[in-house]
Amino acid sequence: MATRGAERGGGRMSAEVYVTGVLTQDRSTLSRAITLIESRRSDDRVLAREVMGRLLARGKQAHRIGITGVPGAGKSTLIDRLASGCLDAGQRVAVLAVDPSSGRTGGSLLGDKTRMARLAGHGRAFVRPSPSSGALGGVSFRTHEAISLCEAAGYDTVFVETVGVGQAEVAVVEMIDTFVLVTLPGAGDELQAVKRGVLELADVIVVNKAEDANRVAARSALRVHASAMHLLRPRTAGWQVPVYCCSAQQDVGVGEIASAVGDHRQLLEESGQWAAARCEQRASWMWRTIEGELLRSFRADPGIRGALEGIEMAVRGGDCSSDAGAAALLETFARSRART
Amino acid sequence: MATRGAERGGGRMSAEVYVTGVLTQDRSTLSRAITLIESRRSDDRVLAREVMGRLLARGKQAHRIGITGVPGAGKSTLIDRLASGCLDAGQRVAVLAVDPSSGRTGGSLLGDKTRMARLAGHGRAFVRPSPSSGALGGVSFRTHEAISLCEAAGYDTVFVETVGVGQAEVAVVEMIDTFVLVTLPGAGDELQAVKRGVLELADVIVVNKAEDANRVAARSALRVHASAMHLLRPRTAGWQVPVYCCSAQQDVGVGEIASAVGDHRQLLEESGQWAAARCEQRASWMWRTIEGELLRSFRADPGIRGALEGIEMAVRGGDCSSDAGAAALLETFARSRART
Repeated sequence: MATRGAERGGGRMSAEVYVTGVLTQDRSTLSRAITLIESRRSDDRVLAREVMGRLLARGKQAHRIGITGVPGAGKSTLIDRLASGCLDAGQRVAVLAVDPSSGRTGGSLLGDKTRMARLAGHGRAFVRPSPSSGALGGVSFRTHEAISLCEAAGYDTVFVETVGVGQAEVAVVEMIDTFVLVTLPGAGDELQAVKRGVLELADVIVVNKAEDANRVAARSALRVHASAMHLLRPRTAGWQVPVYCCSAQQDVGVGEIASAVGDHRQLLEESGQWAAARCEQRASWMWRTIEGELLRSFRADPGIRGALEGIEMAVRGGDCSSDAGAAALLETFARSRART
Repeated sequence: MATRGAERGGGRMSAEVYVTGVLTQDRSTLSRAITLIESRRSDDRVLAREVMGRLLARGKQAHRIGITGVPGAGKSTLIDRLASGCLDAGQRVAVLAVDPSSGRTGGSLLGDKTRMARLAGHGRAFVRPSPSSGALGGVSFRTHEAISLCEAAGYDTVFVETVGVGQAEVAVVEMIDTFVLVTLPGAGDELQAVKRGVLELADVIVVNKAEDANRVAARSALRVHASAMHLLRPRTAGWQVPVYCCSAQQDVGVGEIASAVGDHRQLLEESGQWAAARCEQRASWMWRTIEGELLRSFRADPGIRGALEGIEMAVRGGDCSSDAGAAALLETFARSRART
């Protein structure tokens, strides 16, 4: 496995090597480029920005498909089926997958690895596991750039898998075109209920494992989801969120899902929402990055580090108002800045 | 009507007068105190912080009830009924209402004013209209403090009305205990579908106007909502979101809603979630204020104002990556700060 963080010393590649490798669709270089953009080292950040800047204008626009669902919903199997369909149609396919080895997803390690190996072995496929650790369960500020790198490398479709933790999905819809929610038939409230915020983001809903003894429960889950979707305003204007039963395992009903995903893309393009969304997404990620960085330097400030715990405790306990606490910290920050 | 912004010159009141007036439950002073905390003038901000600081430890904890729904759903009528029930039980009740005269809600101006006048005329009620302008439709950073002022003035229940714009509700649940969503029976997709993010925040759902010809449609809407709620994880652990039909106009079914709201409060208290949520809410509003202020001073910086438009346009157009755009602006900000 590749190590996290870009290579150092003698093994360090120039921007030129990264750019040429990605543009010539070399998967090993693409993988190293993603490692580079994920690195937090400041020299890596400078190199990453140069690489991204040179690749930017060269990329095609892939269809970016987000796939989410609770652990065990069968996301990997469905991605495998959908990606195989894309490959059969002559496309090149990239998958940014949640890495089950990081333990949070509860997916079958052996099963996932087998599937990944099969897909990754195909000449026109690229599979990149992302660690599922961290607040966003596999999605990060860098996922947006990893998608751009896949586009620069000429992939037609990019799948982005997330694990249904809520925050991750809100972030991921700001970088994808079509969002597929994978649910299970009657798997009990704990398994079934998705995190708040996820259901309403879906463009396509799939009730997976609608096989054998599950069939009746799956039809019932389909009806409930279809009713629920009438209560929610669809994310894409003019789109009615469809709900399908399928068995990714037995390869039953996957074709309909692929068609719906294709229809959604077509609506986005024909209505002008595709281009508009890309513009909005780019601006929104710029602002997310700025906000994250402003807050990071605030928290890292020595004055704030000294004062934060006491003030936050007073605010939590109700001895100091939220507003007064914020004012005191902002003043501390300004004074600390003025000294340096 | 009171003017927006605190009074100036000879009419300016001291912190002592504000504090005494609020603690002695003088409604006119409470209203002026809310105007003071809403003011953006820096001298008002200083005074407001002194007032809030002195009142903070004195407040009781009211039951904070958020009421939301699309314009025309009958929020004001329902609040009027629920508030009357509280008054009948001997409580003191405050309502932070969306002001229909600001034009965005589409509510009946005359009707709302009549209702407000009746409620406001009661000796144990306080009604404060908030402008519904702005991104958050009547909710602001200051609403959190307005609620605290009502608590300092000894109100037992505080209703906070919002207009279902999505963002407002996400903000308002960070300051209330119980959130009631008011919907309509079969009012067409446009009216019915709430903004993304609102449905899942509800603790209690009401299908209002379940009267006369609407009765069958209301029962059907109730079933759909009840099914949908099984798909969403409730906001409060251990709570199953109930759905009720009612006619606030004809005062039918309001008692059940009041009971459910009371049950929700009881669960929060008995499970320890009440105290925990208050701590979290205070901290969360402190951080929201800090983030807002950091971003505001970033945008107000002369260097940023000069560079922003060009960079944002390049990012939107795809000529510059989101990350590079953010880095360029953050560098501009740092340089601009170093000069001053």
